[in-house]
Order: sequence, then C-alpha cells, then structure tokens
Amino acid sequence: MKTVGEIAEHIGGQLKGDPNRQVSGFSPLTNSRTETATFITSTKFRKYLKSTNATVVILKESDSDICPVDYIIVEDPYFAYAKATELFVNQNSEVAIAPSAVIDESASIGQGVTVAANAVIGANVTIGDGCSIGAGVVLGDGVEIGCDSTLNANVTIYAGCQLGERAIIHSGAVIGADGFGFANHQGVWVKIHQLGRVVIGNDVEIGANTAVDRGAIDDTIIENGVKLDNQIQIGHNCHIGENTAIASSAAVAGSTTIGKNCAIAGLTGFFGHLEVADNVTLTAMSAVTKSIKEPGHYASGTPLQPYRDWQKNFTRFKQLDEMSRRIKSLEKELTELKGN
Amino acid sequence: MKTVGEIAEHIGGQLKGDPNRQVSGFSPLTNSRTETATFITSTKFRKYLKSTNATVVILKESDSDICPVDYIIVEDPYFAYAKATELFVNQNSEVAIAPSAVIDESASIGQGVTVAANAVIGANVTIGDGCSIGAGVVLGDGVEIGCDSTLNANVTIYAGCQLGERAIIHSGAVIGADGFGFANHQGVWVKIHQLGRVVIGNDVEIGANTAVDRGAIDDTIIENGVKLDNQIQIGHNCHIGENTAIASSAAVAGSTTIGKNCAIAGLTGFFGHLEVADNVTLTAMSAVTKSIKEPGHYASGTPLQPYRDWQKNFTRFKQLDEMSRRIKSLEKELTELKGN
Amino acid sequence: MKTVGEIAEHIGGQLKGDPNRQVSGFSPLTNSRTETATFITSTKFRKYLKSTNATVVILKESDSDICPVDYIIVEDPYFAYAKATELFVNQNSEVAIAPSAVIDESASIGQGVTVAANAVIGANVTIGDGCSIGAGVVLGDGVEIGCDSTLNANVTIYAGCQLGERAIIHSGAVIGADGFGFANHQGVWVKIHQLGRVVIGNDVEIGANTAVDRGAIDDTIIENGVKLDNQIQIGHNCHIGENTAIASSAAVAGSTTIGKNCAIAGLTGFFGHLEVADNVTLTAMSAVTKSIKEPGHYASGTPLQPYRDWQKNFTRFKQLDEMSRRIKSLEKELTELKGN
Repeated sequence: MKTVGEIAEHIGGQLKGDPNRQVSGFSPLTNSRTETATFITSTKFRKYLKSTNATVVILKESDSDICPVDYIIVEDPYFAYAKATELFVNQNSEVAIAPSAVIDESASIGQGVTVAANAVIGANVTIGDGCSIGAGVVLGDGVEIGCDSTLNANVTIYAGCQLGERAIIHSGAVIGADGFGFANHQGVWVKIHQLGRVVIGNDVEIGANTAVDRGAIDDTIIENGVKLDNQIQIGHNCHIGENTAIASSAAVAGSTTIGKNCAIAGLTGFFGHLEVADNVTLTAMSAVTKSIKEPGHYASGTPLQPYRDWQKNFTRFKQLDEMSRRIKSLEKELTELKGN
Repeated sequence: MKTVGEIAEHIGGQLKGDPNRQVSGFSPLTNSRTETATFITSTKFRKYLKSTNATVVILKESDSDICPVDYIIVEDPYFAYAKATELFVNQNSEVAIAPSAVIDESASIGQGVTVAANAVIGANVTIGDGCSIGAGVVLGDGVEIGCDSTLNANVTIYAGCQLGERAIIHSGAVIGADGFGFANHQGVWVKIHQLGRVVIGNDVEIGANTAVDRGAIDDTIIENGVKLDNQIQIGHNCHIGENTAIASSAAVAGSTTIGKNCAIAGLTGFFGHLEVADNVTLTAMSAVTKSIKEPGHYASGTPLQPYRDWQKNFTRFKQLDEMSRRIKSLEKELTELKGN
Repeated sequence: MKTVGEIAEHIGGQLKGDPNRQVSGFSPLTNSRTETATFITSTKFRKYLKSTNATVVILKESDSDICPVDYIIVEDPYFAYAKATELFVNQNSEVAIAPSAVIDESASIGQGVTVAANAVIGANVTIGDGCSIGAGVVLGDGVEIGCDSTLNANVTIYAGCQLGERAIIHSGAVIGADGFGFANHQGVWVKIHQLGRVVIGNDVEIGANTAVDRGAIDDTIIENGVKLDNQIQIGHNCHIGENTAIASSAAVAGSTTIGKNCAIAGLTGFFGHLEVADNVTLTAMSAVTKSIKEPGHYASGTPLQPYRDWQKNFTRFKQLDEMSRRIKSLEKELTELKGN
C-alpha cells in the first residue's frame, strides 16, 4: 500500500485531496476500483472519469473539472503513471549470493549484487554493483554486466558479450549465440565461426525468448535505450540505434542497420543487409524488402477478409501484372476509337 | 506393450478379434506396421486399410467391411486414437524431490509431486497434488500451480502467476515476463512496471518457447482448455477464451481479446487492442488488422509464385489504387462513347 | 594471435608475403584494420581492396594485381575465410565434469566429454566422445548424442531424442517437445500423446530458441547437414532434407516434407502437410500455401510503401476480383463497339 501523498510526491504532481488515503496499486480507468489509483490520457475517456471508483486520479488540469474524486494534476498523465508504477514493484530486499550458484573464482561481483539459485557465472565475468542475477542464468566467460542490471531467470549470455547499466533482460533471452553464417562448398555448408560479440548500451530492455546473435567479424550493436519485446530475432552484425523500440516476433536479418527512435511493430521482417533511417515507424507484419532512406511511416500487406472473398482476390493477385497491361491496352484502344 | 483388449477397454470400443495380441504403439495407416495399432478417419484412406499390416485398426463400423485384420469399432476413431495414446506414454513412476532442487522453505508442495534436478521454487509457491516439475524449472515467489500439472524442463514462471489444474507447459516457455509498456518522455522510453499477473485456467497446454506476458495493471487471462503451440507471443492484458487453439509463432499484441473455440493458424499476427468473436477460424499468416465481430473463417495474404512472376505482380501492387481509378475512368469514357 | 603462415597453411592457399606477421582475427574489407586478415569475394569490392589496412588479404589470383599488402591466393575466398575462422575460435581446453552437474548413474558418457555446471543428464543417456554439454542443459531419459557435438547452455532435449555427430545446438533450443496434436471431442480438445521422437543427422546446427517437436506416431526427421537459424518452429512429423538451410523465425507446420539443398529465408510459413522439392529457394516471409513440386525460386507478399500509399492499395486488394471482372467486361464492350 502507498499513500496518495507518496504518489503525488514521487511523480511531482499537485494533489487535490487527502494525502493519507491508501491505494494498493492501479486500476484501468475503464474499470476502476476503490483503493486504487487510475489515470486519464485522452478526453475521449472523460465519460469513464465521471463515474470512476478510484481513490485518486492522475490527470491534466483540463480534466480536473469533472473528476468526482481526489486527483493529482500533472503535465503528462501517462508518463506520471509510468513513474508511479515504480512505487508498486515488489523489490526483493534480500541481497545475497545463493549457495547453489556456481561462480568462477575469477569473476568480479560488485557491491549489493544478488545471485539466485543455480545461476552459473563463468571465468572473468564482471558484474557491476546492484545487479540482480536470476535463477538458472548462465553467463559465459568474460561477460560484462553494467551496474543495476536485472537478468531474470534462465537468461543465457554467451562468452564475451557486454551489457550496459540498468539492463533488464527477460527469461529465455539468449544474447550472443552464433550468427547464421556458412560458406557453401560443393553443396555442403561450412561453418563460419562467429568471432564478434554483442555489445549492448545502457537502459536496454530485452524481452522473453528474444535472441541477439553475436557478430561474424565485428560486433552486433544495441545502442542505449533500445527496447526489444519478446520472441525477436536480431541477426549477426545488426546495429540498432538509440531509443528504437521493436515489438514482438520481429525478425531482423543479419547486417541490418536500424536508426534511432524507430518504432517497429510486431512480426515485421527485415530482409538483411538493409539500412533504415532514424524515426521510421513500421506497421505490424511489414516486409522491409529494401532500405528505408526517409523517416516516416511505412507498411505492407493485405487486408483480412472473410475466407471466400479472400480466396477470389488471392487468386487474382497472380494476374495483377496482366490486369495492368490489359488496362493499358484498353486505354490505347479507346483512344484510337475516339480518334476515328 | 499393451494388449488389444486393454486398448478396446480404454477407448470403450467393440473389439472384433483376439484381445491378447500385443502392440507396441501406433503406426500411421499410410505406413502401418505389424505389432502396432492404427486408425482410419476418412473413407479416402480405405485403399490403405485394405492392405494394412497393423495388428489392429480403430475404425467406424462402416469401414469394418474391408478391414483385413482385427479391429475395434468406435464412433469417432480420431478421438479414440487420442484416448488410446494415453496408454503408451512413458510414465515416470518415481515420485521424488531431487536433492539438487532448491525449494524455499515457505513453499507448499502437494502429495505425490515430483521435483526434478536443479529446479528452483521460490517463496510462498503452492504446488498442487500430483504435479511434475521438470529439471531447471524456475518458479518465482508466490506462483500457484494446480493439481496434476506438468512443467517440463527449463520452464520459467514469474512471481505471482497462477496455473490451473492439468496444465502442460513445455520447455523454454516463459509465463509472466513484463509486458512491453513504456511511456515516451522527451524521446526516452520510461518503463511502465507491469503490476498484473498471468492467470491460467484448467487443462491448458503451452508449447515450447512460448511467452505469455503479465498484465500491465490487471491480469493477462488464459481460460480453461486453451491450447497454445510453440513460439507464440501473448502480450500483456490479453484475454484468450475457452478452448481456443493457437498454432505456432502467432503473435498476439497487447490487450487483444480472443473469444472461445477459435482456431488460429500459425504466424498469424494480431495488431493489438482488438476483439475477436467466438468461433473464429484464421488461416496461417493472417494479419488481423481490425476486430472480428462475426464468427467465421478469415484470411489475408498473397499466393506463392515463381519468383519472376511474383516480382511483376509485387510491383504492380503499388499501382492497385491507380489501376482501380483507371478502370473507373475507362468505364465512364466507354459509356460516353456509347451515348454518342 | 595467429601467423599469416599458419592461416595460409590451414586454408591451403599460396602466400605472397611474410609468413611470420601476426593477426588477431578478421576485419571486414569495407572497414579493414591492421593486425587482422580480411578477404574479397567479389570484384565490386576492389575499391576497398586498393586501400585496405589489413595485414593480409585472402583473395582470388585475379584480384592480386591491385592488393597493396600481403595476400593468400585461394580458389574460393569465402570458403577459405570460413575455414580460417576455425583458427580463432576460443577453445575451452578444460575437459571436465562439473561437480554440480546431475548425471544419472545409468548414463554413458564418452571420452573427453565436458559437462558444465548444473547440467542435468537423465537415465540411459548416451553422450559420444568429445562432446561439450553446456551449463543448465537438460537431457531427458534415453537421449543419444553423437560424438563431437556441442550443446550450449540451457538447451533442453526431451526423452528419447537422438542427435548425430558434430551437432551444434544453441541456447534455449528445445528438441522433442510434444507436437500440437488434439482431437476435438464435443468442443473440448483431447490431447494426442506424441509417441514419436526427433531424430537428427550429422553436422546439424540448430539456432537459439528454435523448437523441433517430436513426432505424433513416427519420428520428426532432420537429415545430415541441415542448418536451422534461431526462433524457428519445426512441427511434428516434419522431414527436413539434407543440407537444407532455414533462416530465423520460419514456422514449419506439422507433417511438412522439405527436400534437400533448399534455402529458406526468414519468417517463411509452411501451411502444413505439404511437400517441397529439392533445391527450392524461398524469399523471406513467403507463405507456402501449397506443395512445391519443381526446384526454383519462389516468393509471395506485397511491397513496403509509405503508409498513406499503402492504405489505398491495401483497401483496393479487396476489390481485386471485381476489378478483374470489370476489365473483362470493358474488353467485351469495346469489342462489341468496334464490331459496330
């Protein structure tokens, strides 16, 4: 439980109401509950605000007129909500190295580091102060982890890879596996050993079961502030620019360079060896078949339809080029006919 | 080895033949082998039935006329086959807690529970009777697992999540990682701590390396009888209705509500904040770009073609709107011409 | 560090220059660095060759004329580079069984096998000579691993599955989880227990977080020399032919047969129960909606466009069949008009 006063102070907002009332967490405005805080981000939700059951609402001044309960005025309620969630995270207060963790004696473990049960930490690993290493995590030899990073259970980081400060890596993520590189010699694939690393900046979050491959020769680079959702594939030699966010199940083929501040929706595919400019937005399931040189919003794909309708159009797609030529031919004939 | 009589009894069928003959398992009708059972689900396979080498065939009465070997008559041979497979599963008879498992003393472990080597069970975890916890599984604090559930090796369940009875969770699955939620503040992504849980009903199966994210505020809900294949992503706040089955590599963006009894094929993408009705079927690789309000079968996408043909049509897609307008223009001109 | 002479000898090339100079590894030709080797694979990179800073270049004789530094002449520089990378792999010289590994006493472990910390090896497992089993790997009962195979950390292999010689399996990969098989009985999914195995040939590499499901009745088969990238799904009963390579995030639905020497790009979907011929190439994100009977290069999908342009064409896709019929109608009317 936190008091409304604590929340207002934490988010730097102006409280109208009783600072001593307590809330157990948040509830959504569309279904708000007593003893919780909620927030309003758009005037289109004002109808829900009028009848809210929440104990306190985080809002812009312009929405305060109709708020039936206590409120906290801020400039950006969504950002304020994000900040406020920090108060409700269960912090594991116990700082300890589990007896079952297997830590090479050459590893350097910072101050205030937690290492959970059955974690395995290799030779010459460096873990910065304040990190939390989950159960079953495996860190290969020479891995470096910056301060205040959290590696959840069953994360794997291959030898030599580097993470910056305040990283959050979710379970099942694999950092530094071999890139997919082979030379075809007389029909047989000969492995190209992947000699680069993965180097990850500060404030990066990587989702569950996401894989980031090590570079073939140079390193795969994830810059500061990048956010990767679950189930993503980042191929070898990729370079993901600062503050770019990629949603789940996207696949970025090797040697792709993505700029800063991009927002890439789920299941998007990058065909490899492409460059994407800064500030590019991609709709879900986009096929990035070529480099994108200008900022902007891009998309590809076809609409969902009832199966029978779709089948007809699906089949016609094969005739698209022919249809185009028939239109051209019709135009020509019609012009000739008119000319007569 | 099981006898034909045991199978007939287990599936409640009517045996014509020797109950004492033994089979080691199943073989497919198209390639059936001696000392195995097989089954026929469609009259189109009757040609294979005529020449089967199986010891016994599970079939409908209407197919018994041409069966050259012993058979068991049932109403639904495919369902009967499913039931019969239960007899051939290797049951680990050993019920034990591995000495290397790390179990918090506050955890409550039911009767007849197996915990395999190096599993890690957090504080205040509750595990129901008859569960099997695989090697390397990590259960966060406060996780609750219903009776008779099986968690295969290297499953990770984050703190506070709940599984119902008879769950089967496959290796590498991650339940309860943080949803992908950030507030953009002056170009930087500020984490929204994910305060909800994942709550999973009874009789749910979740495939290898599938990820189900915890809710942002409220819980992510997976109802009774849901079946999720491998490599799936279920975003935060999703609600998947009873008995819906989702095939591999589908990505369900956050806050999607999917109804009951849906059948969703692989690599389908849900664009987020959508609602899908009950009894919806989706073809593989469908792009669910908007809510689906009516039951039925839906699809999207374009056909596979030889590369050169595809390239021509692919390019023309960019002209589709223009082509449509040219057709309209042609129609108008032709009407005018006829009018003269 | 390796000498240029060692490299020339290892790749069987003809060195022009000082065999005693040392290099620490490779750098790419487009950004080559001193004390490294590099290589040139195409005449289009000759401009970079002219100004290379590398210590030695692997090249074809025809490119040697303009090389400003020492070089090694070979027939196939890319293959030679692949071979040369073998010299720079960090070999863990330590052969040992970690005390924390949990190995069933009935398991058979070959000569020179390394088992890392917290690995769990089940009953009747057989591991061939020279294998390396990573930290946290779980091998189910009866698993067989051929000689000289490498299983990276946190790999899971279910009971009864077989790997050939020289396998490389990356972290988070799951081999042998249950295929997605259910019989629908009165609206409820009844599990079909998956009684087959996964059988994998020699020289197979499987990427991070890839899942290969066990067969329903017979086995799932991965032939010799197959290379699977990360995040791939291989459904039950699939058969992948020799030397086929599949890139990341592809999903192969159950009972698909893929021929030999295929090259399948990322995010490609196979709709299930299909057959794909030998020597088929598939562009990324292809939808393999039907069997492919002839070798060749295939593709599907639509081009990436600026969002506004795309939206217009996207909508028109629903009218494709109608557009086709309108063109036909126009053609007919025009012919009639001309006839008059």
